[in-house]
Amino acid sequence: MKPLRIFFAASILAMSSSAAAMATDLLPSWQDGATKNSIISFVDKVTKIGGPDFIEPADRVAVFDNDGTLWSEQPIYFQLAFALDRVKALAPKHPEWKDTQPFKAVLENDTKALIKSGKRGLMELMMASHVGMSTDQFAEIVDAWISSAMHPKTGKLYSEMVFQPMIELLGYLRENGFMTYIVSGGGIEFMRPWTYRVYGVPPEQVIGSSVKVKYEMKDGNPVLTRLPEINFIDDKAGKPVGIHYHIGKRPVMAFGNSDGDFEMLEWTTSASGARFGLLVHHDDAKREYAYDRKSHIGQLDRGLDEAPKRGWSITSMKSDWKCIYKYQCQAK
Amino acid sequence: MKPLRIFFAASILAMSSSAAAMATDLLPSWQDGATKNSIISFVDKVTKIGGPDFIEPADRVAVFDNDGTLWSEQPIYFQLAFALDRVKALAPKHPEWKDTQPFKAVLENDTKALIKSGKRGLMELMMASHVGMSTDQFAEIVDAWISSAMHPKTGKLYSEMVFQPMIELLGYLRENGFMTYIVSGGGIEFMRPWTYRVYGVPPEQVIGSSVKVKYEMKDGNPVLTRLPEINFIDDKAGKPVGIHYHIGKRPVMAFGNSDGDFEMLEWTTSASGARFGLLVHHDDAKREYAYDRKSHIGQLDRGLDEAPKRGWSITSMKSDWKCIYKYQCQAK
Repeated sequence: MKPLRIFFAASILAMSSSAAAMATDLLPSWQDGATKNSIISFVDKVTKIGGPDFIEPADRVAVFDNDGTLWSEQPIYFQLAFALDRVKALAPKHPEWKDTQPFKAVLENDTKALIKSGKRGLMELMMASHVGMSTDQFAEIVDAWISSAMHPKTGKLYSEMVFQPMIELLGYLRENGFMTYIVSGGGIEFMRPWTYRVYGVPPEQVIGSSVKVKYEMKDGNPVLTRLPEINFIDDKAGKPVGIHYHIGKRPVMAFGNSDGDFEMLEWTTSASGARFGLLVHHDDAKREYAYDRKSHIGQLDRGLDEAPKRGWSITSMKSDWKCIYKYQCQAK
Repeated sequence: MKPLRIFFAASILAMSSSAAAMATDLLPSWQDGATKNSIISFVDKVTKIGGPDFIEPADRVAVFDNDGTLWSEQPIYFQLAFALDRVKALAPKHPEWKDTQPFKAVLENDTKALIKSGKRGLMELMMASHVGMSTDQFAEIVDAWISSAMHPKTGKLYSEMVFQPMIELLGYLRENGFMTYIVSGGGIEFMRPWTYRVYGVPPEQVIGSSVKVKYEMKDGNPVLTRLPEINFIDDKAGKPVGIHYHIGKRPVMAFGNSDGDFEMLEWTTSASGARFGLLVHHDDAKREYAYDRKSHIGQLDRGLDEAPKRGWSITSMKSDWKCIYKYQCQAK
């Protein structure tokens, strides 16, 4: 094939993609209005070849928090629900847990005692339920849980409680040449088994907290064993660090919902050139949950104060989104 | 544009790419023979749609060691040459170095004393020369060095001492839908500033050893400061761990040259399905260097013994490569 003909064929494809984008609204679950317009005009600006704000596809990095940004995080972080289920499943092998906190609290569904065990208690639960197996075994356990466990309020699979407007946004950005990374305080290995299926984000674009793993031989085969030792906490000031280790580029767009995402948005939007920051505000008690400044989960306080002066967009789940969960949007 | 027309345009492109591959030898610096054939037949096999060994593009991960695999590593690792140059450049600000080992040895070009300082001495040099600045500043320092420093034997830029056959291999694999990752014992931030330019490998596909970095405000702007503390050593059994953290997928092909790459090849090739491992053997004293079992740098001992029974290919630089460095190949 001659170069000219390749060019011609490529042009047809390029035109078709751009024409399709103009004809089709790729963000149908977003209400028409300021927030949606700000996203579209930003993307138009940085993808306009020859424009003053053009950004090369190689540098189009968008980072998304997960808990509270791509899916719900109430009444408890979904990964904590996973940990509690795991503790219950493992209890028969640990008779001593009946009399030991914080395990006793879990087995007796004693929320007060569980809260009283504090961060240290939660860490004990995470370690007891998350380590000691190979990475492959852990992926299987997560996969089985995410395919069956139900949310206490909606009765839906946790993986169905993802925000349809954000799923559309991920796709819209990828359509415009962005790499879409997840940068979550949650466990990297808790997310990777299902993020591609649910969000279209492959494992290599998932960044999260991690435990140490060790390479060793088991029955003549190499395995990576998960150890009871924190490797990295991908939260708050850890998020820019995680981004740096994994991507090595400063993001162009950042999306979060809590003060745990503050530094990620700050790191992203204080770079030179066109930058975009957005916080999802949980203000929809009817369709999801309403919480911000005083919440123990997903607290959003400093972010609400500083977003306006930093030029960050605040998305109201109540007024900016036509529907919340995928199954609600499909029912419309 | 109608779907059928898009399909047609895409087909033209797909055909052109496949036709071009058949018509053009993408590995022209490789001698025709067993090694080259084994690479091509493996790639044909795993990319053949509907074939028994077909691997989805999303799972086509190829990992490459850097030192001794993609560029030379003699008479000393190039990053160590960088560290020594940095120590000399910083010496005026550290008068105490004149009387303190291992710095004294560096400033007096006393190789014997330098070797005598051992691993601990080297670590001191690395820390003194590699930390205390922001990640952006470090990238600038590396960029300036790699653009100007000359190799003592060839008088060429270090970035010109990359192996042309391996550059071709990287491109050939990418042409066949592979993601090409670097997985090096060298510093991740020492490589990232130039790997895209030199190897076509973007920062997010570079895995390496790292120091801890800290997010902090400097003059009202956030920076990541490099700290004098090891974060991760991406060597030996650390390589499968680094691959796991960064990619979260088990590679399909692995390329190395020393026993530091053994576990990476083992991890890759002991997975189920079609897998490929290759060791570059430095046996060309005339055009590059000859070393293996007894070398302090890039020791290849266990790998030479076990490669045959593990089905790993051994590439002889002398007989499998028509030329070594890019500038030699271009001169032909």
